[in-house]
Amino acid sequence: MSMMKAAVFVAPGRIELADKQIPDVGPNDALMRITTTTICGTDVHILKGEYPVKPGLTVGHEPVGIIEKLGSAVQGYREGQRVIAGAICPTFTSYSCQDGAPSQDGSYLIESGQCGAHGYKATAGWRFGNLIDGTQAEYVLVPDAQANLAPIPDGLTDDQVLMCPDIMSTGFKGAENANIKIGDVVAIFAQGPIGLCATAGARLLGASTIIAVDGNDHRLGIASVMGADVTLNFHQCDPVAEIMKLTGGRGVDAAIEALGTQGTFESSLRVLKPGGTLSSLGVYSTDLTIPLGAFAAGLGDHRIVTALCPGGKERMRRLMNVVASNRVNLGALVTHHFSLDEIVAAYDLFAHQRDGVLKVAIKP
Amino acid sequence: MSMMKAAVFVAPGRIELADKQIPDVGPNDALMRITTTTICGTDVHILKGEYPVKPGLTVGHEPVGIIEKLGSAVQGYREGQRVIAGAICPTFTSYSCQDGAPSQDGSYLIESGQCGAHGYKATAGWRFGNLIDGTQAEYVLVPDAQANLAPIPDGLTDDQVLMCPDIMSTGFKGAENANIKIGDVVAIFAQGPIGLCATAGARLLGASTIIAVDGNDHRLGIASVMGADVTLNFHQCDPVAEIMKLTGGRGVDAAIEALGTQGTFESSLRVLKPGGTLSSLGVYSTDLTIPLGAFAAGLGDHRIVTALCPGGKERMRRLMNVVASNRVNLGALVTHHFSLDEIVAAYDLFAHQRDGVLKVAIKP
Amino acid sequence: MSMMKAAVFVAPGRIELADKQIPDVGPNDALMRITTTTICGTDVHILKGEYPVKPGLTVGHEPVGIIEKLGSAVQGYREGQRVIAGAICPTFTSYSCQDGAPSQDGSYLIESGQCGAHGYKATAGWRFGNLIDGTQAEYVLVPDAQANLAPIPDGLTDDQVLMCPDIMSTGFKGAENANIKIGDVVAIFAQGPIGLCATAGARLLGASTIIAVDGNDHRLGIASVMGADVTLNFHQCDPVAEIMKLTGGRGVDAAIEALGTQGTFESSLRVLKPGGTLSSLGVYSTDLTIPLGAFAAGLGDHRIVTALCPGGKERMRRLMNVVASNRVNLGALVTHHFSLDEIVAAYDLFAHQRDGVLKVAIKP
Amino acid sequence: MSMMKAAVFVAPGRIELADKQIPDVGPNDALMRITTTTICGTDVHILKGEYPVKPGLTVGHEPVGIIEKLGSAVQGYREGQRVIAGAICPTFTSYSCQDGAPSQDGSYLIESGQCGAHGYKATAGWRFGNLIDGTQAEYVLVPDAQANLAPIPDGLTDDQVLMCPDIMSTGFKGAENANIKIGDVVAIFAQGPIGLCATAGARLLGASTIIAVDGNDHRLGIASVMGADVTLNFHQCDPVAEIMKLTGGRGVDAAIEALGTQGTFESSLRVLKPGGTLSSLGVYSTDLTIPLGAFAAGLGDHRIVTALCPGGKERMRRLMNVVASNRVNLGALVTHHFSLDEIVAAYDLFAHQRDGVLKVAIKP
Repeated sequence: MSMMKAAVFVAPGRIELADKQIPDVGPNDALMRITTTTICGTDVHILKGEYPVKPGLTVGHEPVGIIEKLGSAVQGYREGQRVIAGAICPTFTSYSCQDGAPSQDGSYLIESGQCGAHGYKATAGWRFGNLIDGTQAEYVLVPDAQANLAPIPDGLTDDQVLMCPDIMSTGFKGAENANIKIGDVVAIFAQGPIGLCATAGARLLGASTIIAVDGNDHRLGIASVMGADVTLNFHQCDPVAEIMKLTGGRGVDAAIEALGTQGTFESSLRVLKPGGTLSSLGVYSTDLTIPLGAFAAGLGDHRIVTALCPGGKERMRRLMNVVASNRVNLGALVTHHFSLDEIVAAYDLFAHQRDGVLKVAIKP
Repeated sequence: MSMMKAAVFVAPGRIELADKQIPDVGPNDALMRITTTTICGTDVHILKGEYPVKPGLTVGHEPVGIIEKLGSAVQGYREGQRVIAGAICPTFTSYSCQDGAPSQDGSYLIESGQCGAHGYKATAGWRFGNLIDGTQAEYVLVPDAQANLAPIPDGLTDDQVLMCPDIMSTGFKGAENANIKIGDVVAIFAQGPIGLCATAGARLLGASTIIAVDGNDHRLGIASVMGADVTLNFHQCDPVAEIMKLTGGRGVDAAIEALGTQGTFESSLRVLKPGGTLSSLGVYSTDLTIPLGAFAAGLGDHRIVTALCPGGKERMRRLMNVVASNRVNLGALVTHHFSLDEIVAAYDLFAHQRDGVLKVAIKP
Repeated sequence: MSMMKAAVFVAPGRIELADKQIPDVGPNDALMRITTTTICGTDVHILKGEYPVKPGLTVGHEPVGIIEKLGSAVQGYREGQRVIAGAICPTFTSYSCQDGAPSQDGSYLIESGQCGAHGYKATAGWRFGNLIDGTQAEYVLVPDAQANLAPIPDGLTDDQVLMCPDIMSTGFKGAENANIKIGDVVAIFAQGPIGLCATAGARLLGASTIIAVDGNDHRLGIASVMGADVTLNFHQCDPVAEIMKLTGGRGVDAAIEALGTQGTFESSLRVLKPGGTLSSLGVYSTDLTIPLGAFAAGLGDHRIVTALCPGGKERMRRLMNVVASNRVNLGALVTHHFSLDEIVAAYDLFAHQRDGVLKVAIKP
Repeated sequence: MSMMKAAVFVAPGRIELADKQIPDVGPNDALMRITTTTICGTDVHILKGEYPVKPGLTVGHEPVGIIEKLGSAVQGYREGQRVIAGAICPTFTSYSCQDGAPSQDGSYLIESGQCGAHGYKATAGWRFGNLIDGTQAEYVLVPDAQANLAPIPDGLTDDQVLMCPDIMSTGFKGAENANIKIGDVVAIFAQGPIGLCATAGARLLGASTIIAVDGNDHRLGIASVMGADVTLNFHQCDPVAEIMKLTGGRGVDAAIEALGTQGTFESSLRVLKPGGTLSSLGVYSTDLTIPLGAFAAGLGDHRIVTALCPGGKERMRRLMNVVASNRVNLGALVTHHFSLDEIVAAYDLFAHQRDGVLKVAIKP
């Protein structure tokens, strides 16, 4: 039992299966046997070398599995229990965590001497497949397990909860940050997996007119199933003009950006009413420009809010409740299945967005 | 009594005294005799032609005075009563106002047919010296007087309440939008009149370390009086590096931008902790750039919030309470006095920031 | 056209049709021809003399109709337009309104000399059928019409929007005050019309487990249609014990009280988790007791929040959007129809809760 | 070093010094050598047998001291470092903690099998001197030390930070829960140590008129120093009538209850404006009555909010920052000093409120 297979980052362009030692379990850790995991857009950035990680690191951050071994200080779980953990797994004990920003769990890095005087990075709560070995493997070590292991309710399958660790948590956070009120009109720019979850989240939170924008009719069709009232294909219309017309010149109460480009960011701002909220979910790769006019020269009582996927066992518990109570059905998002042995092929399909892929399930 | 003197915008570079008719009073209006008003940075933009208004418009938006005549439907006031009104004087009845954004009171423009299908502009709650005749005159007509006339508490002088209509309301809003919590570290970039009021507001709301940044030692001295714990002159240090050092690499809980330039906006973002709030007060004149790194690629749980000065009689009542209870003393901001006849000279001094001017009092 | 029929309070036990003069229209008023209205539980309290109003007052506060005549200062509407107004029709210009509490619009009473030194009553925003003539009549005068007239979207019938002015606005406010977060468990005590709307509202806002409690299986059946996941008949179980069992001893995240009795109030508190919110909607008729244990001696980080029905045209606009977008269907709540001439019979049926009545539609 | 002195609860009426073993240090613990601690009103309830604890338990929950020994998993501290910990020391990893209610940290009790099917008690985050040995001893074991140890800033004395763990955190929470806005009028009922801290907190958060009520002129004098604008001695006036007069019949924006009696609770409600917040801090010992009229029959848009003292190292860090930046000076609250050997005499003085005592410092 001391060796396992894991998908590791070797060099830009190369993520490959390797044999690694199964890690030791410290007092606050848990060893989880992975039964299902998935590939995220961020992993593709890692594959391409656009987001740097240490060669040899196991990638992946969406664990569904079974507790193999519990650390001596972890209470209230049992070995053999089915659990998930969030993609972001904060300590929950640091200053940042207690200050309302667990995803930005950087202060533990300062405390533990892991960063210098220049301060800590944002996103330090993201550890799997970033700072520590990730989930595309037979086993993963979950740090701060007391705070991060979330038991799967009876009756839910792996595939039903596979979106909880990242995509659903992120997309829903986009809807939460949009500060939706009863009767709101909400526009969501881009309908990839995260945008689709933002659409589902906006519906769940009471938006009464949801406008989904994408260039892909297949995705717009799924957006309708997720709760969009209106879908706009930007190949067929100017979505900004169309949305201003649909709202009688008033603009939307909230706009959710779910891609990470200047175009979607800017469009979100252009359709936003004075006093409205732009909830940004995308991971940008360039500086952004805020157009003076759309920003009302800074006088529009606008809010721009960004988010990193919330983690922790309470968040996971709540999301799985939503699934268990049939409030949303994200099953349609898992379009392909692979074994861990096929990980290279899975990356290839996913990175090239072939065959209508939305999300893949990887089963070791 | 049918004619009055008023400072009108004639053409770029020319604001001049003119004779105008004293306006008629409709059922929801009040005619106010101005006893003191002031000049705002925005008025200088109008003077220079950078912010377009209709030639012939009376400028100015900060009224302190006496009720001369009340409209037939206005209740609970008496002629001869000393009052102020906010620089922004919303209807308070429109959709926007009931939706929590009275300063962005644009929906009344749609309702009343004053704007086209392209929608309404932000800032439509700002009427004095923008959409209707302003306050640098012997008289001003206050629309929606029931919502906008705020009686001056006994014992307060004109100069003591002169900052309430705009500068104090705006600066304090900057502190309110910064979502200050007990024990917060707050940085305020630029210490002109609005930045100084933001400094006073941050102190009032419980920030425990306030860092004021400017390039003018005289203003930084006043910032200390207003509540700054640390002052940084950007001619003598790199304020971003200095603030990161002061906070042990953690960054500030909130940063307030109070000038309206790329530099101050960007510096505000660079010193902001992951999870923090950038409260923007400045009026920008160019597109803004959000640097990718400082924005954590959109993953920093950051909030960027903009504001237009809140108006209305309740806001004015609260601000005058703050003055009456000696919580802040903004007297130091009124550095020069002029009569209305000297308005051209007053603009000249103020626009060129001569003689240590912060704000001028104009008395018809 | 100068006379109309109206249901007036004569004396305890007597609400009767009478002939009244059609009121004059002041500059800020609108005269509305009623096409549909309804009877509220509060009207029954008035009928029984339990809630005192002036003899001769026209009762009723839920107007659906057509603009007959507009005041000279009211803009953006046209005569003949179909509109509703909220049961609560605040001025929106007073201090209270600008201070975030339009339903508690008492300060205008002080300003206009309508109340003494003892201050103003809560609920002063409720004028129809309370402080001024109400809606169970052929015509009603809408004060502050600019703030209160809400056009009915094309395609919606009177019956579809009849719940918006009061029941839907109140029930939804109960859900809004419950501060519902994704994944919450919410219990709603009593499933009369307001409780049913609270159930629909909790569903709309993202609660993932909704537990509806009542003693009437018919109403519990409708509760399931409105969104309840679990229904508990208190004749068949102890709902407090049952809810604690359902939540694994954790308690609910929020409890909504929708009847106005000690029993429902106390049960709401007994099932509430530490840190949870009790949202109270009922109109109580006796002092309330807070049991020490359920209140954790004041140390449970509990919140108790009460509400009066929100009004105003923006609120009405949003609620009608919810109906128009098919987010909820409150049609099942209108169980009986009467003409205005049959008002006495309508009160009799409604007051005695005969024949499975939930709400009645009255059409002049 | 294996034995220490500790004040233990023996039986109702008896708290006495005893010899106890110095506890062992688990991986997540820290052993703290107490340099200063204090006695709280809650300890007096324990002494009297009104609040039951296990005989033999060490009492006290306000630790100031030095790290003697760190658990193997605790990072970023060093032995010999001066620290405090909150009176409430939550795990910060449990569901409750991640759900925004760390003080109500009960879910860990369920997880660890420490409570039955009836659920967990409120206040389960309070461990020192309640569920585990407390701080009136030479040493205390701090559980979940990574989350709870807060280093004392250089230059602050023990006495300066002695109020942070409980009294200051609780009183400030009362002001935070009051949702104070700029210009608010706030009344605080009772000016014992917690009420005085609530007064200081209300001032810190921007209340512009603070009305302090008590029956003791000495305490009202200190209230003025802490920030009260008006003090009312209830032996000399009817505070409810006086406050309604002071506010022109409007009532206060927020009322803070700081004693825990029906009288102060009820008075708080009677002076509250419709739409206002009652922030309750007291520990009640009987059921409470909500008077129908003062509660506006449930229609007043009132909020009643209770609190348990917030703990954790981030809270402590922020409170010590407030002290370090001279925003408040709570030195006046520490009126007497005792050694640990004199603990019985200290309880006697404090329990009988002799000699103008507010708080005592106990130094082992």
